[in-house]
Amino acid sequence: MTKANETGGRYAYERLDRLMHEKARLSIMASLYTRKEGHNFNELKKLCSLTDGNLSRHISILKEAGLLEVIKGYENNKPYTICKLTETGRRRFKDYLNELEQIIKDARTAGKYSERADDIYGFSPA
Amino acid sequence: MTKANETGGRYAYERLDRLMHEKARLSIMASLYTRKEGHNFNELKKLCSLTDGNLSRHISILKEAGLLEVIKGYENNKPYTICKLTETGRRRFKDYLNELEQIIKDARTAGKYSERADDIYGFSPA
Repeated sequence: MTKANETGGRYAYERLDRLMHEKARLSIMASLYTRKEGHNFNELKKLCSLTDGNLSRHISILKEAGLLEVIKGYENNKPYTICKLTETGRRRFKDYLNELEQIIKDARTAGKYSERADDIYGFSPA
Repeated sequence: MTKANETGGRYAYERLDRLMHEKARLSIMASLYTRKEGHNFNELKKLCSLTDGNLSRHISILKEAGLLEVIKGYENNKPYTICKLTETGRRRFKDYLNELEQIIKDARTAGKYSERADDIYGFSPA
């Protein structure tokens, strides 16, 4: 079984990136991960079901961390704002997904073992 | 491809349980999920690398939500506190893991499609 992290507690998940784990930011990252050329602000708002304020706040946090870039411009005299992942953002989101997958596998394996032991012996192993 | 939720935005992940998604609470839930008879407070503190205050706070939140139970007692004149998942907690954590797995698969599939389209056409499909 893979140890979820090397230094801290067995289930401390120290490699799990808190920045992307927050639910609204996970939504934003996934939306942008699945469309390389990015989304404009209104598309992103709909995809993530976020309010203007919330979306702006989380975009700033992700931009600050270098995970996404914000491109502003005009088209037919109308302003637009496009958000897209940076290369770092794309790589770190992939790592985040891998880490998450590991956590699920690990919890399931150990969970099943615990349940099975309970069935056989009437108690679980220490 | 599975739609991550039915009513909200495509990436709003409305079925993802915020209660268990918070990183410290995810640690606590996983620790308890993998040991049916539960853990005492100090074991849990080590497994999750949490401070006394943080662990207490998150245990209260999970207890309040009916996901875990706290059993207090004395053994050899020493007080102990055991935390273990309720049946509801166990079931909801399983659901949470399934939901998380779905999100990973979905993001990966759509992410790969986006990258491939970019390679072939020089842009991604709308």
